[in-house]
Amino acid sequence: MLHESALQTPALLVDAADLEHNLETMSRARPGASLRPHVKAHKCTGLARRQAGAGHGSFTCATIRELEGLAAAGLGDDLLLANEVLDASRLGRIDARVTLAVDSPETIAAAAAADLREVLIDVNVGLPRCGCAPEDAAGLAERARAAGLEVRGVMGYEGHAMLVEEREKREQLVADSMQILRAAHAAVGGELISAGGTGSYDCNALASEVQAGSYLLMDTAYAKLGLPFREALSVLARVISVSRDYAVADCGLKALGMDHGNPSVDGARVWFCSDEHLTFAPEVRVAVGDYVRVRPAHVDPTLAYHRELHVVEGGEVLETLPIDLRHW
Amino acid sequence: MLHESALQTPALLVDAADLEHNLETMSRARPGASLRPHVKAHKCTGLARRQAGAGHGSFTCATIRELEGLAAAGLGDDLLLANEVLDASRLGRIDARVTLAVDSPETIAAAAAADLREVLIDVNVGLPRCGCAPEDAAGLAERARAAGLEVRGVMGYEGHAMLVEEREKREQLVADSMQILRAAHAAVGGELISAGGTGSYDCNALASEVQAGSYLLMDTAYAKLGLPFREALSVLARVISVSRDYAVADCGLKALGMDHGNPSVDGARVWFCSDEHLTFAPEVRVAVGDYVRVRPAHVDPTLAYHRELHVVEGGEVLETLPIDLRHW
Repeated sequence: MLHESALQTPALLVDAADLEHNLETMSRARPGASLRPHVKAHKCTGLARRQAGAGHGSFTCATIRELEGLAAAGLGDDLLLANEVLDASRLGRIDARVTLAVDSPETIAAAAAADLREVLIDVNVGLPRCGCAPEDAAGLAERARAAGLEVRGVMGYEGHAMLVEEREKREQLVADSMQILRAAHAAVGGELISAGGTGSYDCNALASEVQAGSYLLMDTAYAKLGLPFREALSVLARVISVSRDYAVADCGLKALGMDHGNPSVDGARVWFCSDEHLTFAPEVRVAVGDYVRVRPAHVDPTLAYHRELHVVEGGEVLETLPIDLRHW
Repeated sequence: MLHESALQTPALLVDAADLEHNLETMSRARPGASLRPHVKAHKCTGLARRQAGAGHGSFTCATIRELEGLAAAGLGDDLLLANEVLDASRLGRIDARVTLAVDSPETIAAAAAADLREVLIDVNVGLPRCGCAPEDAAGLAERARAAGLEVRGVMGYEGHAMLVEEREKREQLVADSMQILRAAHAAVGGELISAGGTGSYDCNALASEVQAGSYLLMDTAYAKLGLPFREALSVLARVISVSRDYAVADCGLKALGMDHGNPSVDGARVWFCSDEHLTFAPEVRVAVGDYVRVRPAHVDPTLAYHRELHVVEGGEVLETLPIDLRHW
């Protein structure tokens, strides 16, 4: 069996036991179709297959490429593109059940022109991003039905609540958002109320399905919320240079999503990252050639830099999975 | 000919005239081997070939993969890995002239074990990253020569000066760093003094070769320095949703290096980026389906997310080049 130390660094590692723990913990809390895992977090059909094996056969996607890849891998039972697109014609060519989020006359027209059959009305519930104004939801549903589309329900992502560390405040923001979505759903109809994420999986009382993705691998930002999920993801890096006050490892900006700030290294203070370097001050002296585990601040844009991830246990590589849903 | 609007978004665009301007401007200032272009900025052999065509046949790399790719493309006349590595055995298999930076007994041993022939002594000139203490340079050179390696000279990257906006302060930092490198070079010997970057290409009076890379495509961080290079790079994105106060384009964290902060959009204020979204407030109303040009804050980690770039002129795609030196 391959040992971690045989891997080229930087290398993405996923701890097998933590992965299993996260899968089980979420499946107990939100079994079956009450979770629609968001694959944007990992972009890996191998991990999506694990989620399907845990009972979640419907998926959330952020890009057309993610749907194409899942469908090609035989995971196309029920795929939601939780995003607006104008080149919906690509979706029409996918051999899978495809549902598209729409929030405007233009995106409805694109869906209809692509011969798609099913849509969700995407409603703005407080995050300034996509989603129609709540008062426009009913009219858009009517327009979609008039265009021959089946409206499966509504979607409303309370992203502004997702990383709020104070639990009570987070719950209040989620509740406020879902009050908006409840009203929109009453006006739109349909069986689906798709919402939520890792930060609200256990406090979103309205969603018929939660779109959580980060729970599976986690990152240092979500770790601050005190959720029962473990940080399964790290980047294996190697110390290539040691100075008096600091050391340098071979893991930099091109191996890490940086929008949530610097990564963490256990037992060290991270100074800064360069393209291919991490400068850090270790508490205990390290030597050139030592390995360190770097914990990314944001899982999604970290995985999007890597071609593959390695599932490991006790230093052994159990499995190497391609991150095959990258790009667009 | 393909029009920009036929591209899937997000798409990396390089303006052909700006690219030519940047090539020519740099080649006039630092002709031939006085520039050793750093390919980490673009990771694209097609662009490296342009630089070779402009007279610069020697290249700087940050990863072994970059050397492997350049060598395979026939651009291996003189490749410098300006970084420390322990798996130098991979370098030993490359059919090219390979020079490796070393800064410790361990990295010298790795170079010798890999049957490499040439090294540079990497000296810390003020940036807390790789590079030996200046007083150790002579001893390391001696050790390298004793191990059968040819020491071509020294390298010292004044990265802490590179993005200092105030010109006088930048020049002073560069001068201070090069004073350190001059002394190290006197102790080490060899014909090469490799240093510098886009921010010091015209004020580093010591370097026999400058390792600039960003000059070719530029980004909003380097644009603040008032250099004569143009911002040739942008990301083409499409407006997918419009609300009263803002709009959303399909270009997010997975299409942009974010360590220098948010990208810019001409005629708009950028609010924030999500995985696949850019929320921005345009000065003039935009419509769903409109195209916008997004200017990244940092070129290097932006290109590392993309498979290809498109060289464009007046809306037409002249050429599509694979970004083939990505990963490690």
